[in-house]
Amino acid sequence: MGNTLAILTGGGDCPGLNAVIRGVVRSAVGLHNWRVLGIEDGFEGLIGKIRRRDLTLDSVSGILPRGGTILGTSNRGNPFSYPVTVNGKVELQDISDRVLQEFHKSGAEVLIAVGGDGTLKIAQGLYEKGLPVIGVPKTIDNDLRATDVTFGYRTAVAIVTEALDRLHSTAESHHRVMVVEVMGRDAGWIALESGIAGSADVILIPEIPYSVDRICAAIEQRRGRGLRFSIVVVAEGAVAAEGNKVVLQTAAENFGVERLGGVGHAVAQQITAQLDMEIRVVILGHLQRGGSPTPYDRILASRFGVKAVELIAQKKFGRMVALRGRKVVDVEIASAISQLNLVDPAGELVATAESLGIMVGR
Amino acid sequence: MGNTLAILTGGGDCPGLNAVIRGVVRSAVGLHNWRVLGIEDGFEGLIGKIRRRDLTLDSVSGILPRGGTILGTSNRGNPFSYPVTVNGKVELQDISDRVLQEFHKSGAEVLIAVGGDGTLKIAQGLYEKGLPVIGVPKTIDNDLRATDVTFGYRTAVAIVTEALDRLHSTAESHHRVMVVEVMGRDAGWIALESGIAGSADVILIPEIPYSVDRICAAIEQRRGRGLRFSIVVVAEGAVAAEGNKVVLQTAAENFGVERLGGVGHAVAQQITAQLDMEIRVVILGHLQRGGSPTPYDRILASRFGVKAVELIAQKKFGRMVALRGRKVVDVEIASAISQLNLVDPAGELVATAESLGIMVGR
Amino acid sequence: MGNTLAILTGGGDCPGLNAVIRGVVRSAVGLHNWRVLGIEDGFEGLIGKIRRRDLTLDSVSGILPRGGTILGTSNRGNPFSYPVTVNGKVELQDISDRVLQEFHKSGAEVLIAVGGDGTLKIAQGLYEKGLPVIGVPKTIDNDLRATDVTFGYRTAVAIVTEALDRLHSTAESHHRVMVVEVMGRDAGWIALESGIAGSADVILIPEIPYSVDRICAAIEQRRGRGLRFSIVVVAEGAVAAEGNKVVLQTAAENFGVERLGGVGHAVAQQITAQLDMEIRVVILGHLQRGGSPTPYDRILASRFGVKAVELIAQKKFGRMVALRGRKVVDVEIASAISQLNLVDPAGELVATAESLGIMVGR
Amino acid sequence: MGNTLAILTGGGDCPGLNAVIRGVVRSAVGLHNWRVLGIEDGFEGLIGKIRRRDLTLDSVSGILPRGGTILGTSNRGNPFSYPVTVNGKVELQDISDRVLQEFHKSGAEVLIAVGGDGTLKIAQGLYEKGLPVIGVPKTIDNDLRATDVTFGYRTAVAIVTEALDRLHSTAESHHRVMVVEVMGRDAGWIALESGIAGSADVILIPEIPYSVDRICAAIEQRRGRGLRFSIVVVAEGAVAAEGNKVVLQTAAENFGVERLGGVGHAVAQQITAQLDMEIRVVILGHLQRGGSPTPYDRILASRFGVKAVELIAQKKFGRMVALRGRKVVDVEIASAISQLNLVDPAGELVATAESLGIMVGR
Repeated sequence: MGNTLAILTGGGDCPGLNAVIRGVVRSAVGLHNWRVLGIEDGFEGLIGKIRRRDLTLDSVSGILPRGGTILGTSNRGNPFSYPVTVNGKVELQDISDRVLQEFHKSGAEVLIAVGGDGTLKIAQGLYEKGLPVIGVPKTIDNDLRATDVTFGYRTAVAIVTEALDRLHSTAESHHRVMVVEVMGRDAGWIALESGIAGSADVILIPEIPYSVDRICAAIEQRRGRGLRFSIVVVAEGAVAAEGNKVVLQTAAENFGVERLGGVGHAVAQQITAQLDMEIRVVILGHLQRGGSPTPYDRILASRFGVKAVELIAQKKFGRMVALRGRKVVDVEIASAISQLNLVDPAGELVATAESLGIMVGR
Repeated sequence: MGNTLAILTGGGDCPGLNAVIRGVVRSAVGLHNWRVLGIEDGFEGLIGKIRRRDLTLDSVSGILPRGGTILGTSNRGNPFSYPVTVNGKVELQDISDRVLQEFHKSGAEVLIAVGGDGTLKIAQGLYEKGLPVIGVPKTIDNDLRATDVTFGYRTAVAIVTEALDRLHSTAESHHRVMVVEVMGRDAGWIALESGIAGSADVILIPEIPYSVDRICAAIEQRRGRGLRFSIVVVAEGAVAAEGNKVVLQTAAENFGVERLGGVGHAVAQQITAQLDMEIRVVILGHLQRGGSPTPYDRILASRFGVKAVELIAQKKFGRMVALRGRKVVDVEIASAISQLNLVDPAGELVATAESLGIMVGR
Repeated sequence: MGNTLAILTGGGDCPGLNAVIRGVVRSAVGLHNWRVLGIEDGFEGLIGKIRRRDLTLDSVSGILPRGGTILGTSNRGNPFSYPVTVNGKVELQDISDRVLQEFHKSGAEVLIAVGGDGTLKIAQGLYEKGLPVIGVPKTIDNDLRATDVTFGYRTAVAIVTEALDRLHSTAESHHRVMVVEVMGRDAGWIALESGIAGSADVILIPEIPYSVDRICAAIEQRRGRGLRFSIVVVAEGAVAAEGNKVVLQTAAENFGVERLGGVGHAVAQQITAQLDMEIRVVILGHLQRGGSPTPYDRILASRFGVKAVELIAQKKFGRMVALRGRKVVDVEIASAISQLNLVDPAGELVATAESLGIMVGR
Repeated sequence: MGNTLAILTGGGDCPGLNAVIRGVVRSAVGLHNWRVLGIEDGFEGLIGKIRRRDLTLDSVSGILPRGGTILGTSNRGNPFSYPVTVNGKVELQDISDRVLQEFHKSGAEVLIAVGGDGTLKIAQGLYEKGLPVIGVPKTIDNDLRATDVTFGYRTAVAIVTEALDRLHSTAESHHRVMVVEVMGRDAGWIALESGIAGSADVILIPEIPYSVDRICAAIEQRRGRGLRFSIVVVAEGAVAAEGNKVVLQTAAENFGVERLGGVGHAVAQQITAQLDMEIRVVILGHLQRGGSPTPYDRILASRFGVKAVELIAQKKFGRMVALRGRKVVDVEIASAISQLNLVDPAGELVATAESLGIMVGR
């Protein structure tokens, strides 16, 4: 099987993408003597004239420790719903047939699609139209149920933890409350794990609606113990519990909170309304996606890349690689999409945080 | 001279403060067998009943690599202009006589004041009222003319450079313009040095009013060379040149730019208005003040601490320690205040940046 | 149960020990309102007059990110075999009865013993004599079968990977073979995982006897591809396969290899004997045990500490905490001792390394 | 002047070499529109058929944060003394005329030689034979008098300091003496600065012959204060004072110290002979030359690269770039060679270390 395979990376940037690419090339070229084509900028590179380049052993030399993706990535380029201008108006069209034609002209027989939910859905669609496809899951938020852990996630946790270590000294020296907004729209893994590792006092995650009163009580209690600073880690998807929603909205209206750009500022406003303490907000944003992957992420991503090639050798298409326990296995792409891996509010990790004296929202 | 000296740290947090404290204690206690009192929370700790604790060799053990200050710091507590409530109204009063009385009751004979412009002005005021005072300069922005370099500055540059290294991979993978706002209200040192070290494409500093047209031209030129991403580093005090002021104001009115919190967003808006590229803004904020000082800052701060004690031994009061070339010297506190060390727009460092192909604002 | 518990750390230093101590104290004191005694220097602190201090919430403040153990540790002090001088001669005696008496005089009712094989064996012995004991496993080599992962291990892998990243540039610039000796007397986990993450070309582990001929062939093959440098990672327990033993011994005799201190130098000698290339040896040694734990290790160690206290609350003595899959569980200390967790030469991780083009000894 | 220039890097690896190369290319190609040839592997690349490649803006993209040199380096290849086999015997011949002929055939008119003493001597020799040459100084030890600081030096200090931070926790937990051997054959800068920054207790440098008795006394004194661990930093060129030489030799004879590979082991043996404490030795070796340069070194190296091109534009040949105070200036290569920049035993830095309670050898 397979003299030529193609690989693309789609969706948001994530440390470990280069390690997947390198794993695929080293294994496909070095072991199987296949040819590997790198598609540029995700599915965008398949639209119109295909944009690709040969990936040799030399072209992946030195990329293991580097963040980002040498192939480029994009959130655009869905062939099943592509914006085309017709009579001066933009219409979304299904151009997948043309894309498949172009793909085959390149000589590639198989596609490895590395990406999140959006990328994998497109990959599944193309598979259903007959293209031999392998999926490699990618989400920095670790919110995909089909795999125990995703690469990039632990690097993000490491970056946030390092930031919390740094902010501690400033918070303590100035007796301030530091509100640190981190990634996590649906799942609070990054906030929870980096909050525990970075010695946060309060952690707010999407899975547990938070109570401003209880946050303020926790900060007050610390003050009672002579600790005049607190670190509050907030996932970007955190929401206030019923009783506080009103406060949130009012704060938004009065202070333009929402336009200020994030839940971090909203939480800061809510605390300020109740407590007389200096508060500062830090939004880590894109810093969390950048930089050299941790050893764990380099290894996991390399294993995913090697496994993807193995699946091609076994002609197991329509499958996605995944980590289960200590093993890299394969699952159906179809079954894997859209099933979220959320923090269990009644689970051990939240309980551990609470035993450590951390207030987890409620 | 001096069986007992007191030390306080005032103003914003800065990596190296603990190294100064340790240098003072190791030298005063270990070498001279003096007693050292640590005043808590800057001049605040001298208001009312003095808040202080004994600093022994043990109490400074292990603090060299740590950010922040074990003494706490504050921007409040000016004894020459202290808010006092009189008949229900807040008045600013000169309570320096009472402060000096309290100070002497503690048994301390000399004060080492570590801080920026504000702290040093108060120190000078107390010196003029007869208190033997030694100043140690502190500004993370490196904007004090009396000393060649200040501790904390290189740590801030290291943190920003690390952030730029991380953001590079994301900018490149996504073909984005990344606008990174860094500290520097009056002086652009942090932006300039970390911009050069972090391979920025555009650097905007307070000393050189910037032209949006030229920024956009630089980004376009890179695009022409096939480089579809750019990194723009903006000091918080950067301002647009005459012709662009209108744009800045309009952007502020239309988009609520100023309320968005910083020049970073303003610059992003201005670029967006001219170029069709994805832009992201990252504001590094308090991250720049935190964390373990670099070796250089640990050494410089230690030298400052040792020199401060030496000046006490020599009864050279009213003096401030400073770095001149490779030597730590002493200068008059009075002469040192408020003289800013700005980037020279015609100097070698800006010219070097330009020779490297970096657009420095103009 | 349990108004007062004692905790000690034994055996070699390991990042995460402080996080365990903090987890125990925060949970026992903060949640259960118990008293915690810290025993100094492992079982040494129980010999003679007990050496211990109260551990309060304050005394564990700030220790989470720090390596080492605030309690000190020791490899000595086995109460079942303690060196006592009798008539001028040193005898090993069982002094465990006296140790138990002293222990109870301190007011402590339960002991949490954090350590490796040696420490856990003593803990089990004391448990069999009636002392309520909880074990917390610790091995930087990750070679304990009772738990999926041990804290400290991933920090060691991170430190080695960082070193490999650094050595790469020098190896490449000078066209050298770099032999890097890492920890792992029985198990090759550190060498294998950091070798994959750090882009090693050859990895030698105790579980797979190595062939010098094949190492040299691998290096030669790289040279044929124009890659004039190679990185060889050697676990300290790596041994040459039958056919090479002679070479190893001869090298030792001729060059004093063994006295040079390690397998790293032996391997270097063996390669030098066959290839005309510059070789350099780096022995990472104690660097691998030091420094701030990674977020993963901080969290795992914290969970272990919290779980140990939970087991006390449930009066489940003679048990050891352990990680199984994603869960922290408890197992019998007795069953856990001496069962090694070795790398499976036929397992996925070795196969992945080989698919990536890495020569794993054979 | 100069449509085509050549650049080579010679001698030991050093962080910042790539930054120099990038500075030269960005300035020469981007600003002046010249052509730049990169010579491979130092002067080796000029022997026989010249080995070189074109350096474009693209070929230096992304190399600023990387250690090593993309051109390769070598300690061999002195054209004035090159080993040639004549009648089966190796003779050292002056082949510089042939080298110059080859050089000119490549089309290059000027040579930028980046390297240490050896490289600069060859460069000066070629200059004297008529080749337009510019020198860029490089020594990781910072031991060149012609420039205030050399790039790479601060990165080495940062790596050693980080190692000392890590070793502290292990030394303290185990109550050990840690002997850490660092670079510095003639000059003790790395040992002295990283020792101060990394909180060493004893620092041994070539400039101050050390006394074993005084080292042991310092360690004993700490023990008296309850501090049962000590960190001893030893420069590889450190030597014992007269009275101890005998001890050193005896130790070497008895224990094979010298063959163990370094002064670190010798010092450990000497301490062991007097004190009953656990001692461990760590030799940092090649780790000190690797890895990403610090921001300071990236900037200094970039400035050197830019200045070298400026000197070519001004036709100031036979000159070497150098840092003096805050300025990059140019000096005669001839005058710069072999003048060592040593630590002044009576200078401020040693005095500061001593005031901090550090024993500096004597």
